Amino acid sequence: MTYDKSELLYEGKAKKIFSVQGDDQVIWQEFKDSFTAFNGEKKATMAGKGVINQKIASLIFFFFSDQGIPSHWVKDQGEDSMVTKKLSMIDLEVVVRNILAGSTAKKFNILEGTALGEPLVEFYYKKDELGDPFISDDQALMLKVVRAPEDLLTLKKLALQVNQVLKKLFHQAQIDLVDFKLEFGYDREGNILLGDEISPDSCRLWDQQTKEKMDKDRFRRDLGQVLEKYQEVLDRLTNQ
Amino acid sequence: MTYDKSELLYEGKAKKIFSVQGDDQVIWQEFKDSFTAFNGEKKATMAGKGVINQKIASLIFFFFSDQGIPSHWVKDQGEDSMVTKKLSMIDLEVVVRNILAGSTAKKFNILEGTALGEPLVEFYYKKDELGDPFISDDQALMLKVVRAPEDLLTLKKLALQVNQVLKKLFHQAQIDLVDFKLEFGYDREGNILLGDEISPDSCRLWDQQTKEKMDKDRFRRDLGQVLEKYQEVLDRLTNQ
Repeated sequence: MTYDKSELLYEGKAKKIFSVQGDDQVIWQEFKDSFTAFNGEKKATMAGKGVINQKIASLIFFFFSDQGIPSHWVKDQGEDSMVTKKLSMIDLEVVVRNILAGSTAKKFNILEGTALGEPLVEFYYKKDELGDPFISDDQALMLKVVRAPEDLLTLKKLALQVNQVLKKLFHQAQIDLVDFKLEFGYDREGNILLGDEISPDSCRLWDQQTKEKMDKDRFRRDLGQVLEKYQEVLDRLTNQ
Repeated sequence: MTYDKSELLYEGKAKKIFSVQGDDQVIWQEFKDSFTAFNGEKKATMAGKGVINQKIASLIFFFFSDQGIPSHWVKDQGEDSMVTKKLSMIDLEVVVRNILAGSTAKKFNILEGTALGEPLVEFYYKKDELGDPFISDDQALMLKVVRAPEDLLTLKKLALQVNQVLKKLFHQAQIDLVDFKLEFGYDREGNILLGDEISPDSCRLWDQQTKEKMDKDRFRRDLGQVLEKYQEVLDRLTNQ
């Protein structure tokens, strides 16, 4: 099956979305070279970033398909694009935390790096204009972000399943999976599939030995060597 | 059974807590004349406020005992105090909303006054030094605020039961119960009882006809006639 890129439907912060000629069940996602943080307030472009993220995301989606985790991934296209199933996206960022860092560590004044006994699943309401606020299950139901209340449980179950598989994958690459963000959507049949991407943009990844950051916090916190560390994540995952 | 006030154990923002002579199962709560808002940043004292709030809280606890809602209330003491069962308090503010107002209306940019189809229960982590942040059920479990996970469900069930009863009580007094905050604790046997107080300090109460505010928002938002409206709430509840 071959696909041809058609018109630009939407340009997001990290990807351009195109329609696909003659097939309205799929879309073409092109990974951009841009970095954004703090709800778009901090921006940069680094040549080659799109290619690295596409390769990491693709490798992970390919691994997931093998592990029975349903995702939107259909096929890679060149080095910076992939064709994915068209989903009706759920307005939630589903965050899984194994080790406390970032906003939740700050909120509870708990030391960054504190390991959790059980992974913590959090929902953030995906609305740029509201600053993607943290919400509870009951608020998510009030906002009608899912089609049926039990879908929230499905999201949590899938998120924890992804965590199991991903933690193992990164562990073998000598990387601690600190936390990560997922997005999900409904396919035409109403099934919930993993969408968006998994990459160092959406995960906190620390070197297992040195605890050095290998993710977007290098950009957020001006730590330098941003792309070098993204590339190292890709190399380590590839050379397992 | 008579009780005698003994030593001051703790002075909070709105109440002084004393031990009771010869009975370590109960405490003596004295309602203060002070107002505080915005995590203690705004303060005032109004003579007579403690008496009004004690009378409202007592009336409500008395009504609850009749309706099978377990609370810490044991007996009134004079005009500004009550003896209550000593509880091991749960570090949660349990908020029930019937109509959106305050922080949640702001968070979702929904017009204050929007009625909810179903009452919304929210948990806030009761820690002054963290600013009482909004938390999810999963975060509450991570923080081990309750002794067993199912206790969170008990809290929600009790909060909704309180809402049913309280909404009816205020409705008969021509008052809309917009939202309110509850606190709960464990008694010696491990039962969860309603603690703290219910008063215009902890509720949003709007006149059913005019939608005029009859609660602490008058103090928070400098609307004047604060105690006059508290007194009116008491009068309307008393004269039903």
